[in-house]
Amino acid sequence: MTLISHEDIDDLSLGSTFLATGGGGDPYAPALITREALKCHGPVRLIEPETLDDDALVVAIGSVGAPTVSLELLPSLDEPARALDAFENHVGRKVDALISFEIGGGNSLIPLVAASARDLPVVNADGMGRALPEAQMMTFPIAGVKPTPAIAFDYAGGVTCFDAPDTTVYERQIRALTMCMGGMITAVEHPMTGEQVKRAVIPGTVEFSRRIGKLLRTHRGAADDVFDELARILDDSVYGAFRQVWSGKVVDKNSRIDGGFDVGSATIEAFGGAGEALKIAIRNEYLVARSGERVLASVPDLIIIVDYETCEPINAERLRYGQRVAVFALGCPDFYRQDRALDVTGPRAFGFDFDFIPLENAG
Amino acid sequence: MTLISHEDIDDLSLGSTFLATGGGGDPYAPALITREALKCHGPVRLIEPETLDDDALVVAIGSVGAPTVSLELLPSLDEPARALDAFENHVGRKVDALISFEIGGGNSLIPLVAASARDLPVVNADGMGRALPEAQMMTFPIAGVKPTPAIAFDYAGGVTCFDAPDTTVYERQIRALTMCMGGMITAVEHPMTGEQVKRAVIPGTVEFSRRIGKLLRTHRGAADDVFDELARILDDSVYGAFRQVWSGKVVDKNSRIDGGFDVGSATIEAFGGAGEALKIAIRNEYLVARSGERVLASVPDLIIIVDYETCEPINAERLRYGQRVAVFALGCPDFYRQDRALDVTGPRAFGFDFDFIPLENAG
Repeated sequence: MTLISHEDIDDLSLGSTFLATGGGGDPYAPALITREALKCHGPVRLIEPETLDDDALVVAIGSVGAPTVSLELLPSLDEPARALDAFENHVGRKVDALISFEIGGGNSLIPLVAASARDLPVVNADGMGRALPEAQMMTFPIAGVKPTPAIAFDYAGGVTCFDAPDTTVYERQIRALTMCMGGMITAVEHPMTGEQVKRAVIPGTVEFSRRIGKLLRTHRGAADDVFDELARILDDSVYGAFRQVWSGKVVDKNSRIDGGFDVGSATIEAFGGAGEALKIAIRNEYLVARSGERVLASVPDLIIIVDYETCEPINAERLRYGQRVAVFALGCPDFYRQDRALDVTGPRAFGFDFDFIPLENAG
Repeated sequence: MTLISHEDIDDLSLGSTFLATGGGGDPYAPALITREALKCHGPVRLIEPETLDDDALVVAIGSVGAPTVSLELLPSLDEPARALDAFENHVGRKVDALISFEIGGGNSLIPLVAASARDLPVVNADGMGRALPEAQMMTFPIAGVKPTPAIAFDYAGGVTCFDAPDTTVYERQIRALTMCMGGMITAVEHPMTGEQVKRAVIPGTVEFSRRIGKLLRTHRGAADDVFDELARILDDSVYGAFRQVWSGKVVDKNSRIDGGFDVGSATIEAFGGAGEALKIAIRNEYLVARSGERVLASVPDLIIIVDYETCEPINAERLRYGQRVAVFALGCPDFYRQDRALDVTGPRAFGFDFDFIPLENAG
C-alpha cells in the first residue's frame, strides 16, 4: 500500500507546480496546511483507480478561484474536511475516496487535507493531468460525469448546494458564487462511481507528481542540465513529447483579474535578444507560446516556465520582469487529444483563432 | 374564509403595480400564469397571520432579478410549485403556508401560483408593503429571520441551495446566481415559524392591494379625480400620509442594467414647464423625488407614478418620454420607520447623502 506522509509534501508541491503550467494556484499555503494535517491526522492511503469497487462513491474536492486570490485568501486547516462533511450531509451518503480536480498547483493537495482528517483514501489520478481554468475542461465531464450534486463551502462557513444540468452551467454558477464570496471557495463536486472513475481520469498523476518533485528538489541545477533527467521520467509517463522551446529573459508581464480569472501575457526575449520574442498568453495557466506567427506550443499541451538557473517552476502570479527562464513544452495525455476534449480545451475554446497544434508538429 | 380566485387577479395585479413604486417586476406575465393556475387548480385560501400556529412553517417565494428581464424571461406555470417542491425536499419537511416577498409587482402573485398547485394557503401579508430591490430590505431579516435554508430554481430546471450566515451575504449570493442564470430565478427563502410571521411582516397587504386595484379599475379617471377615493382607502390602512406631489410630462428617462438591477432616472417637467423639473432616481424602484434641492419624497416612503389621464400606475420599465403623469407619495408603514429598518432602506442605503425625510416633513 502506498502512503502519502507529511514528508512527501515538499516533493508533491514542487511536482504540482511543474504540472500546473503556470496556474493551479500557488501551492505554498496548501502545502503548509497539508503538512500540518498529515502530521496531525496521519498519512493518507493512495489507491489506484482499478482497485475501486464499481459502486464506490468518489468525489473531487478542491479550491475554485483566481490563483492570485489564493495568495491572500488562505485556506484553513479544517475547511476541506468541513466541505466534505457538508457534501455527505447533502447527499445523505458517506464518500469512499477523494480525487483531485487537477494535479497542477495547490488543488493537488486539498484532497489530502480532507482525506487525512476523515480517514479516506485518495485516488492516484486527477481530472486534468495539469491545471486548466474551468470545470468543463476536466476529464470527468468530458467522459460524461455529471457535476452535481455539488457543494461550495465559503469563507463565511456558508454552504451552497448545486444541481445543474451540465458542467458548463455549473461552471457559470460556481464561478459567480466564488466571485461574490471573496474570490475563492472550496468545492466538492463531480461525484462518480468507481466504475466511472476508471474511465474518467488521468491515472497515476499523484505518484508521478511526487517523482517529478523529488527530481527537481534533489537534482537542482540549471534548466539545461536537468532537462535530460526530466525527459527520462516523462518518457515513462502518460504524457507525450517533451521539449525545451525557449530560454531568455522576461521583459514584460501583465495580468488582471477578469471574471474571476487571471488574464494577461508575458514576453520573453531570447538570450542575446535576436529575433522575435516569445509571447505567452495567460488565462490562469500558460495557454499558448508564440514567437511572431510561429506557435511553439498550445493548450492542452503543457507549457512550463522554470527558473533558468535552478529549474524551479514559476507560476504565472510569480512570473515577473527580469527573471531569466527556460520554457518547456510537454505533450498532453492522449485523453486530451480526443475531439470531445479538444472542443473544450483547445486554443479555440480560449478564443484563439487557430486549432490545437500538437507539440510534435509545432514550431 | 377569504378566497382568492382567478377573477381577483386583474385587481390584484393593478393594486400590486400601484404599490410597486415603479419596480417589483411587471405583473403582466405573472398575472397570466396566476389566472391560469387558479382556473386549473382552484382558488387559494387567504389567511391572517394571527391564525397561524406558532410552529407552522411559512416560506417566502418569488422571482429575483431585474424588472426589465421579467418582460423577456417569462415564468412558467409550474416553476413556482417545482421550486416549492425543491425547497421541501431540501429541508425534509412540508410547508404550511406561503407568503410574498413584496406586495408590489409580479411577486405579489407568485405565491398564489405555487399555493394553488399544492393546495396551500397564502398569508394576507408581505415582506415589504411595497417593492424594494434587495433581500436584506425585507421585514423578515429586519425582524431577525434567517434567510436560509433557501433554494433558487433556474430556467434550466437547476436547483441551488443556500445556507448563508445573514441576508446581506445571501443577497450577494442569490444575485450572483441570478445574473449568471439569465437574470431571473425563482427563490424560496426566509423560512419562518408562525410565531415569527406575526412580528416579521406587513399585515393585510394582499387584501389591501385587491381593494386598491378594484378602485383603480372601477373608478378609472384622471389622477386628480381618483385621488380623493384613493386617499379614503389609504386612510384606513397600515400606510401613512398620502399626497399628490407632482403632475407633468416625462421629458427624459434613462436606465441600464447594472449588477442585476435597473438603474437610472426620470425627469418630469411640470405642466406649464415653469420652475425646476422633478427628478426621480431609480434602482428597480422609484427611490427619491427631487425638484432642485427640495426632496419631495424619499425611500422607504412610496413614490407612485400614474398616467395623468387614467390614473393607471406606470412601472419604471414602461415609463418613457412624452408620457403625461401624476406623481403620488405615500408614507411607508410604521415598521419601516424603525431605525433598524431605515438603516437598510433609507436614502443612505442607496448611496444618497441625506437621511430619510418623512413625507409629512418633506417638500
